[in-house]
Amino acid sequence: MHSLKQIKQWVEQILNLFNPEGRGFDSFLDKVKEIVESNENRRLPKLPKGTRDFAKEQMAVREKAFSIIQNVFKRHGATALDTPVFELRETLMGKYGEDSKLVYDIADQGGELCSLRYDLTVPFARYVAMNGITSFKRYQIAKVYRRDNPSKGRYREFYQCDFDIAGLFEPMGPDFEIVKILTELLDELEIGDYEVKLNHRKLLDGMLEICGVPPEKFRTICSSIDKLDKQSFEQVKKEMVEEKGLSSEIADRIGNFVKEKGAPLELLSKLRQEGSEFLDNQSSREALDELSIMFEALERSKCSHRIVFDLSLARGLDYYTGVIFEAVCIGAEVGSIGAGGRYDNLIGMFGTKQVPAVGMSLGIERVFNIMEELNEKQKQVIRPTETQVLVSIMVDNKLAEAAGLVSQLWDAKINAEYLVSKRKEKHFNRAKESGIPWMVMVGEKELSGGFVTLKKLEKGSEEKEDQTCSRDSFVGELLKLLSC
Amino acid sequence: MHSLKQIKQWVEQILNLFNPEGRGFDSFLDKVKEIVESNENRRLPKLPKGTRDFAKEQMAVREKAFSIIQNVFKRHGATALDTPVFELRETLMGKYGEDSKLVYDIADQGGELCSLRYDLTVPFARYVAMNGITSFKRYQIAKVYRRDNPSKGRYREFYQCDFDIAGLFEPMGPDFEIVKILTELLDELEIGDYEVKLNHRKLLDGMLEICGVPPEKFRTICSSIDKLDKQSFEQVKKEMVEEKGLSSEIADRIGNFVKEKGAPLELLSKLRQEGSEFLDNQSSREALDELSIMFEALERSKCSHRIVFDLSLARGLDYYTGVIFEAVCIGAEVGSIGAGGRYDNLIGMFGTKQVPAVGMSLGIERVFNIMEELNEKQKQVIRPTETQVLVSIMVDNKLAEAAGLVSQLWDAKINAEYLVSKRKEKHFNRAKESGIPWMVMVGEKELSGGFVTLKKLEKGSEEKEDQTCSRDSFVGELLKLLSC
Repeated sequence: MHSLKQIKQWVEQILNLFNPEGRGFDSFLDKVKEIVESNENRRLPKLPKGTRDFAKEQMAVREKAFSIIQNVFKRHGATALDTPVFELRETLMGKYGEDSKLVYDIADQGGELCSLRYDLTVPFARYVAMNGITSFKRYQIAKVYRRDNPSKGRYREFYQCDFDIAGLFEPMGPDFEIVKILTELLDELEIGDYEVKLNHRKLLDGMLEICGVPPEKFRTICSSIDKLDKQSFEQVKKEMVEEKGLSSEIADRIGNFVKEKGAPLELLSKLRQEGSEFLDNQSSREALDELSIMFEALERSKCSHRIVFDLSLARGLDYYTGVIFEAVCIGAEVGSIGAGGRYDNLIGMFGTKQVPAVGMSLGIERVFNIMEELNEKQKQVIRPTETQVLVSIMVDNKLAEAAGLVSQLWDAKINAEYLVSKRKEKHFNRAKESGIPWMVMVGEKELSGGFVTLKKLEKGSEEKEDQTCSRDSFVGELLKLLSC
Repeated sequence: MHSLKQIKQWVEQILNLFNPEGRGFDSFLDKVKEIVESNENRRLPKLPKGTRDFAKEQMAVREKAFSIIQNVFKRHGATALDTPVFELRETLMGKYGEDSKLVYDIADQGGELCSLRYDLTVPFARYVAMNGITSFKRYQIAKVYRRDNPSKGRYREFYQCDFDIAGLFEPMGPDFEIVKILTELLDELEIGDYEVKLNHRKLLDGMLEICGVPPEKFRTICSSIDKLDKQSFEQVKKEMVEEKGLSSEIADRIGNFVKEKGAPLELLSKLRQEGSEFLDNQSSREALDELSIMFEALERSKCSHRIVFDLSLARGLDYYTGVIFEAVCIGAEVGSIGAGGRYDNLIGMFGTKQVPAVGMSLGIERVFNIMEELNEKQKQVIRPTETQVLVSIMVDNKLAEAAGLVSQLWDAKINAEYLVSKRKEKHFNRAKESGIPWMVMVGEKELSGGFVTLKKLEKGSEEKEDQTCSRDSFVGELLKLLSC
């Protein structure tokens, strides 16, 4: 052990070596204190990885999007469903295949084992099964949780906007309506040009059967096909042959089929031409008959031009049983912005009777990004608040004065804030920063005279003069001015 | 061990004893099968204890309440904040005292330790500290999580509606506004008569000092006082004397003070009368000065009649430093329906600089219960959907026909559903069940004639005749009819 004195001497020697001005040990202590203090200050609270806060302008963009989405959902006669953020672990088990490892578990603190929801589809299916429901059109806008890798830019908490129709209806009616809703959403959110790729699981199954793929390999070959939007056919073929044991000949036959894409009714009629192999296969024949009904409905509803019938669309999730679809932005690198399909066996997995269902999920985080980028490009200023009037008391210590005036505005349901300060510029800065269009000004003159002065801050086509009002009439006057 | 044959004989004998019709062993097996199957069906999925789903009518009530609340919050210039449902565990630690045991932890699956939020105040404080914010008016409507006892009727997941103002403003300005907001919320939610009890932590501290309570016992005696709304003074006195070691004399002095309650300005002037012990105590003198400014403002804003200045209000949470308040329904057994107060030291607990703050939280679950009860009493029928038009195709297999017509309505932003069925009563039942006011009917006649028939279903003062329209004009006609 060394004495403090000895250490002090060594530190002084070292410091003198590196610091020719040599202010010695006290200066060193000051520096240490400085570093410690700045670290103290830097010990800020943090967010969990992969999560975010949203405030002010960002929140305004989100609220606008949610309101558009909710209006579209309600327009189709759906009601909202709100489910708990966590479910019994057994409810989620066996639903997500390999992705189950991404499910967040709640700690076992005694009692039931629970997990955070991974999507909104399984809670919906659980709700329908639990309540013995046979028909339900519901929407849900809520956050879901996935222990994904934040370093890849993936979030661990993010919103999904889901619309599902469960129950027996007019054949292909719900399937048509779900795709129509997706186009309405993307149209009204104004996020640019897009297309909806569409295919049918039974058509894929038929296609694989025709190509000679053994049935037990249908699902795994589907996941290979699903990669065709990111990989070349040569890469996918390699996977099918080397990893999944198909013959090169079978893989090439698949390659020929999945090239097919085009306008719905056009490609459909090509696939149904005399001599088409699809007509000899029961599964694909059924699929083509269903698609025929659906495409006719989409054509009549005037959204057919948004749809691309694409035999290479396969979708990852195992539980789809019929129509599948995926919306992508044209010319943007954001990938899928919404997807869904028919899943007739999921609700029955809860041990109750089968209820057929079809649904879609909007990839709202990508939509937000696009909306924020567009706002930036168009240099749109987004007001985070909707305050219409600032009550400006330009005399100090007059809270009661402010309270009396601003409460009259609040009671008249006018969005208003107040400020008490004799520094005039504070008032104008505040109004300008928040984009507040009107001021109710009260200075010494107004105070003694018992009136207020109304000032318009936004530059209109005609410059407005300030206008004085009695304390009894200014609310009525402002209501008139605000409704102009 | 007995042979199967022997068991079969015994069972037959027993069955014959209880079942004189005696259909023997096969009938027994059938019964067993029936029981097993019905149990199979009863193995329904479940919700975690203490959680609920909300759908349809209940959801409509909630949405209405949220919309009222959000409008009030926005009227006061607040912006929404959205924070993750879980926080780093260290963020929540040391904030909730004894209640920390109610915090839900996320399982340790590698990575950071996280917990579900327990309230919205700590995430707000974390956000303000983390972003170095000095001034922020925010609201948040979101679910919080507590491992409370569901057998006591407590929920483990429930909504809170919080409004907080952080930053330095006009003295007592934010305190006044927060209480005003609480009265606006309760007025506009129309949940019956209520009062807001109000007190000041520094006044309580001064009072305890005057009574001779040692400072280290202030907080624990406060929690005893806080029980006075549920227990008699004798019970509370017993706790203060026997459990917390006060002398009987000191407890009685406290008893005299906490009896005081009344109209704000009235009781205030009594407590400030010459000779009042409160004037000699620094802490209570400061509190009375602050309350004076606040009560004047509340008086001028015309909500003073809702406030009861009550020296027995103490509030459980440790972090309050100034004004505290709690709203209760008059004549109802629901307890607190909203509460809050000033907490000037919480944000600084994150190692950054202090930012003073005051806020409130609305106990929205109780509000929902009251609203639902009122709806029931008034026999109000709540429509879960807002569908205005049902497109009724009364010919089978005509999805495309329906799609063409209903899409025109959707594109005109009319809330519409469709039904394809030749069974007339199905259409009318559907419209009646959902309370849909208009039908666009298409039967064989309309189909061949190329027109539609509009039918009004709600009985108005004048009975309306059905009216026919061309396929090009029915949307315009409906828009006119709906705006009447």
